[in-house]
Formats: sequence, C-alpha cells, structure tokens
Amino acid sequence: MQLIAEVYDVLKSIIGMSNEEMSKTFAKWNDGILESYLIEITSKILAKPDDVTGEGYVVDYVLDQTGSKGTGRWTVQEAAEQSVAAPTLAAALDSRYISSRKDERLKASALLNGPTDIPNVSKFQIIEDLEAALYAAKICSYAQGLGIIKAASAAKNWDIDMSQCAKMWKGGCIIRAKLLDKIQGALKTNPDLPNLMVDLTFAAELNERQLAWRRIVTLCVASGISCPALSASLNYYDSYRRESLPANLTQAQRDFFGGHTYERVDREGPFHCAWTDAHKGIGDISERTAGENASRL
Amino acid sequence: MQLIAEVYDVLKSIIGMSNEEMSKTFAKWNDGILESYLIEITSKILAKPDDVTGEGYVVDYVLDQTGSKGTGRWTVQEAAEQSVAAPTLAAALDSRYISSRKDERLKASALLNGPTDIPNVSKFQIIEDLEAALYAAKICSYAQGLGIIKAASAAKNWDIDMSQCAKMWKGGCIIRAKLLDKIQGALKTNPDLPNLMVDLTFAAELNERQLAWRRIVTLCVASGISCPALSASLNYYDSYRRESLPANLTQAQRDFFGGHTYERVDREGPFHCAWTDAHKGIGDISERTAGENASRL
Repeated sequence: MQLIAEVYDVLKSIIGMSNEEMSKTFAKWNDGILESYLIEITSKILAKPDDVTGEGYVVDYVLDQTGSKGTGRWTVQEAAEQSVAAPTLAAALDSRYISSRKDERLKASALLNGPTDIPNVSKFQIIEDLEAALYAAKICSYAQGLGIIKAASAAKNWDIDMSQCAKMWKGGCIIRAKLLDKIQGALKTNPDLPNLMVDLTFAAELNERQLAWRRIVTLCVASGISCPALSASLNYYDSYRRESLPANLTQAQRDFFGGHTYERVDREGPFHCAWTDAHKGIGDISERTAGENASRL
Repeated sequence: MQLIAEVYDVLKSIIGMSNEEMSKTFAKWNDGILESYLIEITSKILAKPDDVTGEGYVVDYVLDQTGSKGTGRWTVQEAAEQSVAAPTLAAALDSRYISSRKDERLKASALLNGPTDIPNVSKFQIIEDLEAALYAAKICSYAQGLGIIKAASAAKNWDIDMSQCAKMWKGGCIIRAKLLDKIQGALKTNPDLPNLMVDLTFAAELNERQLAWRRIVTLCVASGISCPALSASLNYYDSYRRESLPANLTQAQRDFFGGHTYERVDREGPFHCAWTDAHKGIGDISERTAGENASRL
C-alpha cells in the first residue's frame, strides 16, 4: 500500500497527472505484471466522484492521516525478533506514523526546505519507470514478508511450506496478486530458497528493472518528494547483492569501544585488536570481568 | 555507526580513497561540527596497521559481518510500540542483519546486477557533501531516538527532562558528540519541542545541507552502493516536512477494502464511502457485526 502511495505521489506531485489519467494508468498496469487487488482498487478509488460535496473526487478530500490495526507494527517487531531485515515493511509502518502527525508536519513544512529545481524528465519515461520500480519493490516486499515467516518457522519448528503460504495469499487476501503464482512456483521448485530475489526468474526481472528503479528513486530524492518504501527496497536489493559491505568498519568500532572481537577474512577464530596504547592489557569483552581487571592489567 | 559505515563506503568504493586518506578525512571532520567519539575512533581504526599479518590495515581484514547485543533490536521494537517513526535506526538494525548473511550475499552478488556506469562527480565535492550529509542524517538519528524516549515518557508518565537526556549522553557514552551541546540547549529552551528538526538552529542547519545530502544519496543510488541509513534519514526529513503526504490514498484503500472510514480535509467526523455498487448497504467496519449483516443488507 505504501509503495502504491509513493507511485501515486510521483504521478500527482511530479508529473501533475489528473485523477482520471492516474486511474487509467493503474487500470492499464492492472492488465500487466502488476495485476493485483490493490492496483485494481486504486484505479477505482482515484476515479470515484465525491459523494459528499458532489464536486471533484473523494480521494482529494481524504485526510492524509492513516490509521492502523497493529498488524504492521507486529510484523516489524517480529522481523526484528527473528533477525530478519524488513526495511520496506518498516518504511511503510513509519510512513503511517509520520502521516498521523499532521499538525507537526504543517509546522515543519514552513521551516524545512526542499529543492527548488525539479529535474526535467519526460512524463512517458517516468510512467514506464514507475511500473518497473513498483514491480521490483513489490518483489522485495514479498521477499521480506516471506523471510520473516521462514525464520520464525525455523526457530519454532513450524515446518511451514512456504509455497503454500504464497498460495494462501492468492485467495481472499488484500495482498492477492498475479505475482503470487510466480512466487508459489519459485518456492515449490526450491523450498529452501534463501531469498525470493535470488530465484532465477525474479533475479532476471530485478536485473531488467534496476536502472528504472534507480531513476525513480533519484528523481524523488532530487525533487524532495519522499519515497521511503521504494528507496528502502532498493537499498535492500543493493545491500543484499553486495559481496562486501562496510560492516567491517562497524565491527571494528565494536571491537574498539567494547572489545566485542571480530572475525577475519583470512583466518579462523575471533580476534581482538589492541587498537591504541589504552587498549593494551584490557583484553576483549570475555576477559573483562568486573573487579578482576585491576590485577590483570 | 551505520551512517559512518556508509560514508566510509562512499570514500572507499566510489572515490577509491586509501585508508590513510580516509583516516585523515575523519580526523579533519572531528575538528568540525561532526566532532564525536565515533568519528574520532573511526579515524584511528582506519590507520591501524594489521598486527596479525604485519601487512596492511586491520580494518581490511575484518569480516563484514556485525554482531549485536540486542539494544538496536529493542529500540526499533519500542519505537514501533510507541508509534514513533525511527527509520534511520531501523535501517541500521536491518543493515546488521543483512551483513550477517554473508554466505547469501556472496551468492546473490553473482545473480543480481548493479549499474555499470558510475556517475562522474568531483572527489572534492563528494567529500564536502559527505560531511554535510552525515551531519544532517545524524540530526535525524538523534531526533528519532529522542522521539522514542519522549513518547515513552508521555505514555508511562515518566516525566523525563529531555535536555538532561542529551546531557547524560555527553559523558561516557559511545554516542557522545559535540552536537549534544546544541541538542541539550535546544531542549532546555523548548522542552516540548515536537521534533529536534524543527528547532530553529537545527532547521537552519538542515536547510543549508539538504542539497548536499540529496547529491550523496542520488550518487549512491546511481552507483549501486547502498546507503540505507543516509537514505532513510533523508526520506524521514522529506516526509516530516510535507504538508500533504499521499497517505490520503492509503486511508482511502483502507476504507475501500475494510470499511475503516476516513477523515476529510473539509469537514469533521469519520466518513465511509460506498466506493462501488458492491459496497452499498455494507456500511463501515463498526456496522459490520458477524452474523448480523445478512438482515442489514
């Protein structure tokens, strides 16, 4: 839902599309790879005349403040519990929280600046890129949701059949989507798939779309139009496909200030470095026992 | 720590700086607005020769896989509990989780593509922009941390003096930083500050730096170098300063599929729309009681 909201924002705030045009765009997308219940209803919502005033469209009268039932919160908390990265889901949750602080935002909008020059990109290109970006980010979103279930299943010995999960979402659920057929297939072929993104079909689809996705995120960043979920998804993709992350520095910092030790790329075992003279003789965290250090120094 | 890791990644992977140069850059930054314990030790870490092999620098032998003690997890879970957006903190936590899946990343790196053309930006400009981006994102990070404490204090009647919080972090804590003097001052002047970003001094500092910050995030996105925390921070800034978010669409979707009702910008009270013929006579969620609907239709 948050990804769709961000795409709507680009169409409306950057391209300046009318509700009718946006409704048609979502309807068209619903005939392609994005086919899903949420895309379908978005098309209908955008074109719905306002029945209260008799003028304009309902959606333009709806206050930009979202409620929640608590499922998003619970999902993000459980992801953290299971040590599973779920940045797209977290971004969506945080977006709801920020949306609900409308009074604060009104005041902030008068104080905090955005860019004044908006990049000049062809409307046609943006619409085409948006479809690709939304699809790619959606794959990430499902990858994260499935990742949480997979981790919980392993931790609690639930023995969940992941492909049946995807199948179940195909009926009655608001996240039902054509994409779920492909997900179900991928998980049936390889029940131990570490991440949906590395299924060969999805990998190819992501590779085809990654440049368009980057163009949309940079367009939003340069325009000052926030796209937290599209952007968190792309960062998820870029972090996951990275052989070497800068986490070596983070771990070195942890060893520096807390003696948490580090592993090495060239040999086995935990290591601790005497980073400075002040570190000498202190040892790593396992050697630091309260009250006993004095004698050991 | 994650923000610093991302800045290090840009210096190393995009500019191709040597460890000595990076160490000097962090040392220089430590003489300016970024002055803090973590920047100081980063400078020392980067220049530390490897004592195991006697060749090169320790940091380059450290495995890019970070542990955690659980404080990051707990913070993110509590933020969700308190309905406070903490995207920078969530991005940092998720980065640790992704870093720990090194085996998966190695396989993914062979399957998932990044861009092949890296934008050509002057080295000097990037270094200058990085300092600004890191400072701006750091303000967001403190804003989020303080936001969680403020919300918990209100919910639990702890009556916490927020400026004393900032003061406490100045001594002994790894997040101690020159910035905390300014934070302490801002919270003393205005104990009910809704968000650190809207303190006039910080607002001015963010406004001065937002373009540099955008240049860094777009550079990373276009280069395929993930920057989840820098990017989540900027999206936090851009969402918070937005008078109207696309959350109106999200709330309209919630009313469409779940009858969750919506508020309007032009009049008081909750509203429910009969979006389609199928919605007619169903009512909103409060009117939908299991087993009683048939007679009411």
